[in-house]
Amino acid sequence: MSVQGALEGRPVIIVGAGFGGLFAARRLARGGAQVVLIDRRNFHTFTPLLYQVAAAELEPEEIAYPVRTIFRGQRNVRIVLGEVQRVDVLARTLQVGQLVLDFGDLILATGSTTSFFGVQGAPEHTLPLKTPGDAVRLRSHILGCLEQAALQPEKAERMRLMTFVIVGGGPTGVEYAGALAELIRGPLARDFPLLDLREVRVILVEASRTLLGVFPERLGEYALRRLRGMGVEVRLAARVLSVGWRSLNFEEGRALEAASVVWTAGVRDGPAPARWGLPTARDGRVPVESTLQVAGHPHVYVVGDGAYIELDGAPLPMLAPVAIQAGEAAADNILRTAVGRPARAFRYRDKGTMATIGRNKAVAILGGRGFSGFVAWVIWLAIHISSLIGFRNRLLVLTNWAWDYLFFERGVRLIDPNP
Amino acid sequence: MSVQGALEGRPVIIVGAGFGGLFAARRLARGGAQVVLIDRRNFHTFTPLLYQVAAAELEPEEIAYPVRTIFRGQRNVRIVLGEVQRVDVLARTLQVGQLVLDFGDLILATGSTTSFFGVQGAPEHTLPLKTPGDAVRLRSHILGCLEQAALQPEKAERMRLMTFVIVGGGPTGVEYAGALAELIRGPLARDFPLLDLREVRVILVEASRTLLGVFPERLGEYALRRLRGMGVEVRLAARVLSVGWRSLNFEEGRALEAASVVWTAGVRDGPAPARWGLPTARDGRVPVESTLQVAGHPHVYVVGDGAYIELDGAPLPMLAPVAIQAGEAAADNILRTAVGRPARAFRYRDKGTMATIGRNKAVAILGGRGFSGFVAWVIWLAIHISSLIGFRNRLLVLTNWAWDYLFFERGVRLIDPNP
Repeated sequence: MSVQGALEGRPVIIVGAGFGGLFAARRLARGGAQVVLIDRRNFHTFTPLLYQVAAAELEPEEIAYPVRTIFRGQRNVRIVLGEVQRVDVLARTLQVGQLVLDFGDLILATGSTTSFFGVQGAPEHTLPLKTPGDAVRLRSHILGCLEQAALQPEKAERMRLMTFVIVGGGPTGVEYAGALAELIRGPLARDFPLLDLREVRVILVEASRTLLGVFPERLGEYALRRLRGMGVEVRLAARVLSVGWRSLNFEEGRALEAASVVWTAGVRDGPAPARWGLPTARDGRVPVESTLQVAGHPHVYVVGDGAYIELDGAPLPMLAPVAIQAGEAAADNILRTAVGRPARAFRYRDKGTMATIGRNKAVAILGGRGFSGFVAWVIWLAIHISSLIGFRNRLLVLTNWAWDYLFFERGVRLIDPNP
Repeated sequence: MSVQGALEGRPVIIVGAGFGGLFAARRLARGGAQVVLIDRRNFHTFTPLLYQVAAAELEPEEIAYPVRTIFRGQRNVRIVLGEVQRVDVLARTLQVGQLVLDFGDLILATGSTTSFFGVQGAPEHTLPLKTPGDAVRLRSHILGCLEQAALQPEKAERMRLMTFVIVGGGPTGVEYAGALAELIRGPLARDFPLLDLREVRVILVEASRTLLGVFPERLGEYALRRLRGMGVEVRLAARVLSVGWRSLNFEEGRALEAASVVWTAGVRDGPAPARWGLPTARDGRVPVESTLQVAGHPHVYVVGDGAYIELDGAPLPMLAPVAIQAGEAAADNILRTAVGRPARAFRYRDKGTMATIGRNKAVAILGGRGFSGFVAWVIWLAIHISSLIGFRNRLLVLTNWAWDYLFFERGVRLIDPNP
């Protein structure tokens, strides 16, 4: 029986058009399956560059691409824009809006939400950086604080407006701290000639003793030196106790007045899969078998940040490369089982990790080797540009970066043009 | 006494960074005056291209530019982001946020708001096209209607979702109708292969008997032929009686089911100047003397859409070129009166008017001559690109247009990435 014949009846439904869902849909579409791809948004987001939108370096549409356009050539992929209300894994049906859809196999790739680790006040008083909307709001907030500071005669209040705290010393926090320091000391210094920029503070707060915990220690130390050289105050082993409307408090008793607290410290799964009757681990992720199927539900696969995948005793990190590879592996298993072949165990290939720290500087591990400085930055640039979906996006981002690089200038600094 | 000396005390305050305010500020800054430029937004908008943002052809940041960056080199221009609460024209003070500022001269360039001519339901149920926020919302609304239509099995409801009505046959209405027809029948037809696009209707409604009333009749007829050739239904002499949540009604008794009604029919001044004790004409505009000063208040100038300027017995239209020239004339008069010279009467030079109707086609009057077709389109393109503020914006817009032209493809079709 051909794959096409076997899959002709009930389609494969994929929930979520992030990295996991998108790459699963591509693989299945090429394999001849009937696919329904559901997302709340009509675009895929290239999340590794979100921090550059929040630093006014890129615009949201440069890191987002309409899902319909990605699958334009593929007649066997149907796109549905909507929120999934209900999944019945036993009856194999799913409700989105007023539609009820049957599925043969289901891939849940619903991603993650921010984890605040129970820090009091953090959900209300910190700014997240998970979606293009978050990034635009963060950019508007920071520019708005500087506009207010420019009109504020009292020094204490002015300094509070110009204190920017970033909680979390992982890749997002490190990258954003560097980009923000460059934005403020470069183009914004020229835009706000009357502000005393020595009053601006960019503070990066990390609970552990090193930055970039996922990297070898040497690269974390390099990032620390670079950030401090750029004027970023880095506070290691600093645990946030609570966040208030105007300040944040540390466990060791100190407090900090700040109008902007950005939260990049953690991610956890959204609550949806638990509602749909699937088992969940402590952090809300769904444990899957080595084949990415949910135990007892061989037609349900979970990939991406929402999946708890243990390999060699340790859980895989919530990163884009893991989601991409798991999405493709789940798609392969669906194509295999459709023709009676057994599902295969997922193997994650760590192709490398990297983070950029401002203009020209980055850290990277590739093929087990660590790189830092300009070489790492060029690698970072090449990999990110080639990964962007759609030739036009690549061209736009490259233009923007070239502009930034040549003129030490950011492209756009509009405060929320949408309202 | 030098201009600089005369103006050193109280600054010139300009309210509004649209065309009138921006060009007044430029002229005054170059003349050595101390200038305070106040706006609610941190960017200037190139409004003639707003309709292209609403048609998913350009992004808001391509037609907007930060005001601070425009005046970066000019130390004598202070930018204030905020809403003006109160103007005291006698005491010559103005309140913005918690700041109270003294002024020597004041230029009000506060622009216009949409006029609904008392049509019932129009303010609540139609979509305006006055700001970048309006344009992004309109784009999201139209893309959202097509997404809903793609899931809608009932034909009547599906057709309602795919009926797009544009009220107003002036330049904005004509340009948007053409751009929308091209968007839907081009890129969206490829994105929505399952939709029957013969069910889509783009309807342009005009109360008078001709399109483009400000142009010679021949060019209005050309626009009518072109739009009809592109599949736009044009209804002339059709007066809208009321707009409801799902439909609109005409005076002659007919009704039309439509999920999207765009209102481009009229503009009127915002209510602010009346609140501040200035005289206003029937449409809310402030009548000014031939020198652009308000009668009895020689230190208060009004320019742009908010000014009622009568020349040779007829009021000047609310158009960008009028605002630009009046802004510069008001600035010149402030510089003249500062050194004891008399203010001069404003003379408007009509350099031409133009409108584009889809790919390659436009109408234009330049130096009294009428042009239509491809030649007019090339003139339109050249003039608009050269008018965009900032070299980077020009480059981006040109790239986007070249892309669109070569590939019959729109750049971006994200449904409101901000929320």
